[in-house]
Amino acid sequence: MKHLISAEDISKEQFQEIYELSQQVKKALREDRKKFSVLKGKCIVNLFFEPSTRTRTSFEKAGKFLSADVINISTSTSSVKKGESLIDTLKNLDMMHPDVVVLRHPCEGAPYTVKNYINASIVNAGDGCHQHPTQALLDAVTLTEHLQTLEGKKITIMGDISHSRVARSDAILFRKLGAEVFVYGPSPMMPRFPEAIGVKKLSSFEEVAQISDVVILLRIQLERQSARKVFPSLREYAELFGMNKKRLEMLKPDTVILHPGPFNRGVELNNDVVTSTRSLIFQQVETGLAVRMVVLSLLCGKTEKLKEEIDG
Amino acid sequence: MKHLISAEDISKEQFQEIYELSQQVKKALREDRKKFSVLKGKCIVNLFFEPSTRTRTSFEKAGKFLSADVINISTSTSSVKKGESLIDTLKNLDMMHPDVVVLRHPCEGAPYTVKNYINASIVNAGDGCHQHPTQALLDAVTLTEHLQTLEGKKITIMGDISHSRVARSDAILFRKLGAEVFVYGPSPMMPRFPEAIGVKKLSSFEEVAQISDVVILLRIQLERQSARKVFPSLREYAELFGMNKKRLEMLKPDTVILHPGPFNRGVELNNDVVTSTRSLIFQQVETGLAVRMVVLSLLCGKTEKLKEEIDG
Amino acid sequence: MKHLISAEDISKEQFQEIYELSQQVKKALREDRKKFSVLKGKCIVNLFFEPSTRTRTSFEKAGKFLSADVINISTSTSSVKKGESLIDTLKNLDMMHPDVVVLRHPCEGAPYTVKNYINASIVNAGDGCHQHPTQALLDAVTLTEHLQTLEGKKITIMGDISHSRVARSDAILFRKLGAEVFVYGPSPMMPRFPEAIGVKKLSSFEEVAQISDVVILLRIQLERQSARKVFPSLREYAELFGMNKKRLEMLKPDTVILHPGPFNRGVELNNDVVTSTRSLIFQQVETGLAVRMVVLSLLCGKTEKLKEEIDG
Repeated sequence: MKHLISAEDISKEQFQEIYELSQQVKKALREDRKKFSVLKGKCIVNLFFEPSTRTRTSFEKAGKFLSADVINISTSTSSVKKGESLIDTLKNLDMMHPDVVVLRHPCEGAPYTVKNYINASIVNAGDGCHQHPTQALLDAVTLTEHLQTLEGKKITIMGDISHSRVARSDAILFRKLGAEVFVYGPSPMMPRFPEAIGVKKLSSFEEVAQISDVVILLRIQLERQSARKVFPSLREYAELFGMNKKRLEMLKPDTVILHPGPFNRGVELNNDVVTSTRSLIFQQVETGLAVRMVVLSLLCGKTEKLKEEIDG
Repeated sequence: MKHLISAEDISKEQFQEIYELSQQVKKALREDRKKFSVLKGKCIVNLFFEPSTRTRTSFEKAGKFLSADVINISTSTSSVKKGESLIDTLKNLDMMHPDVVVLRHPCEGAPYTVKNYINASIVNAGDGCHQHPTQALLDAVTLTEHLQTLEGKKITIMGDISHSRVARSDAILFRKLGAEVFVYGPSPMMPRFPEAIGVKKLSSFEEVAQISDVVILLRIQLERQSARKVFPSLREYAELFGMNKKRLEMLKPDTVILHPGPFNRGVELNNDVVTSTRSLIFQQVETGLAVRMVVLSLLCGKTEKLKEEIDG
Repeated sequence: MKHLISAEDISKEQFQEIYELSQQVKKALREDRKKFSVLKGKCIVNLFFEPSTRTRTSFEKAGKFLSADVINISTSTSSVKKGESLIDTLKNLDMMHPDVVVLRHPCEGAPYTVKNYINASIVNAGDGCHQHPTQALLDAVTLTEHLQTLEGKKITIMGDISHSRVARSDAILFRKLGAEVFVYGPSPMMPRFPEAIGVKKLSSFEEVAQISDVVILLRIQLERQSARKVFPSLREYAELFGMNKKRLEMLKPDTVILHPGPFNRGVELNNDVVTSTRSLIFQQVETGLAVRMVVLSLLCGKTEKLKEEIDG
């Protein structure tokens, strides 16, 4: 695998390989084995044109735990301010011999625009409303850990689907792994062409509760709310679509909850959900680190080396 | 020691251990021995919700000199902007297996709020007007180097005592080590209940000069001055309370000056003080680095390893 | 060499040494050999008072590829905001035992002001309109690679000469290496005393085209344009002075183009130039990384060690 830009790039076989290796990595991390020499001499650049703590930190740790040199570049200090085009920024970066560029950019498709101009591998860490493939991977790994397989499972994604790169990436990967994917939320937030990503709309929470093996909550993007004067307000959203004790109890007994984070307590979920045994939210973060360690190794052609080093 | 949140957490015996090891570390640093493998495979996160150069840099260097992986997160890029709560930020971070989180936060008590939710150790690098224990440690180590002991010494802290986490932390530790602690400054900046932190107010600089073995100057926080319309102005402060040549000469011959930095020349002190042989201000910075190397090693259970590696 | 503050600091012999070593470094980088232990145990601080991606990233990578500990400090998080003077910031930093401070500062001469107060070496990474010596080095190395020697070559710098630290640094070093240096651009952007830096003004592009072996384009600083209401506008500049297909074809057949970057396509150059085989613009970036690895090694007295390690 040269680049990881879309969940489409991941075959079922590759997922299985990533899944298995990520389980080994998690085990090592939990035994406090956090430093591997796998990517020594490799250079990873985190190039973030949108703010991020979790994803940037996760990739930074993943790189450092594998002994790569990690360089962070964020827009606030970037020469983009000086008028440089994205392609030129990437071509210039590339002349400094990075092995992987982890790119977050507000424009859909940005990674496709730049990939042909550079030698480094690209990991898409979010391009506008389009894709966030490592999030899909970590969600699928988390669920596979819990459910053994996604084959035949029913997974509902709830919230602002139309603007969500997580929803889109998840839907593609989950379906590839054999799951059925549904969406539910306020109608202004529903995709106009759900069939384009192979999902079905549900029309009530009762339906969600009845069929779902997994419910994935999405973050209501507070930072975009000031501009939006339409239904629903945060309070309405929490009231009508937020996951709370009452709704939790309507779910099937084994249904589990995911959320890509960061989450807003009191909006898309409340405390009862966070502390519920159904919630896999914090596990997702741990899994995310392991998955990113595997993805970086994979792009650098070093998964065998990682396996060997973990096995000791 | 699991966490270092308050100067209260440090026993007299622990101080002695930290003091002795920090002397060895300083010696090594001065011999240009700056890289130890003590914390290889450990991960330290600097999580700063307030701007800082010195403290963040000092912890970052301390971690890197000990071969830890160091991750910096500052508010400007943080998911806190997206509405996440402090506890959730910390719980999420914790799922990525850091060993130590160095936390600076504007709210008093923030480290106590989060410590029970995470596995990592917490170092309080400043929580509002409450505590800054590594500053107290470095001040006490600097003074012990110079005076051999704090037992029976008279130490006066001058400036905005009521808002100072440094004053509070210093007072607690210095008293534990046997010193008497006094405070002096404009009355609006004096603590209302000095007995709560065991200090005595002085009412004139003459008194300060007569009794003090040590004078600790505090920074007048320029960034908070625009909001404050009351006495004293910066010029009044400099005139009435700033340390200058005249006031220096009123001190006892052996009295030394400390300042936690960054300092404002021309306000709480002037050039005569900075260049004076009485000033230990720059030594504090060097000692701070050594003390933080010791503290990080201590929290990771690696002080013996550090000693061994220094001894070669 | 203790400090590198001005292109004046570099002798012809030192340039030759830097040139040769940088060629070896580039070869190693291209063979994917990117990690050397040369500066292990050394600490490099990037202290940037102006935004920068390329230069900061280049120094950060250079340091990390040599196994140094690299600490980034930028103004936005700096204690300068709290009123500290530059000298005090540097003196404090210096107490934490850095080996090299890479300083970018908006004031001309800032590195001279601070160098006598500290033990660390200083690399000037740009001081206002004054100097940027590693840019001059990388330009001279790039040209020497291409032309074998600068002896007798005619080099024209085009654009806002009077505010350009690159123009000043380049002119000094190129002349030292035997080249003749010319300048050309809108008259408000021409230096009033070209003879002070030993350059000659040209008065038309025809002249430039006729004599130049090398044309160096400078970035029109968009971020300063809003304040400037005078001739030329960006559009006028592009029209009258921008390098485009027509002007490219007027040049002598072997003339090559440099640009320090980041560049504004459509202003000082257009796409025909970027994709032209005459352009050495992207090579400059790669050479810049190699040159900075050599400079950091040189300031730490480790060029012999670097040579040995590359030779394996």
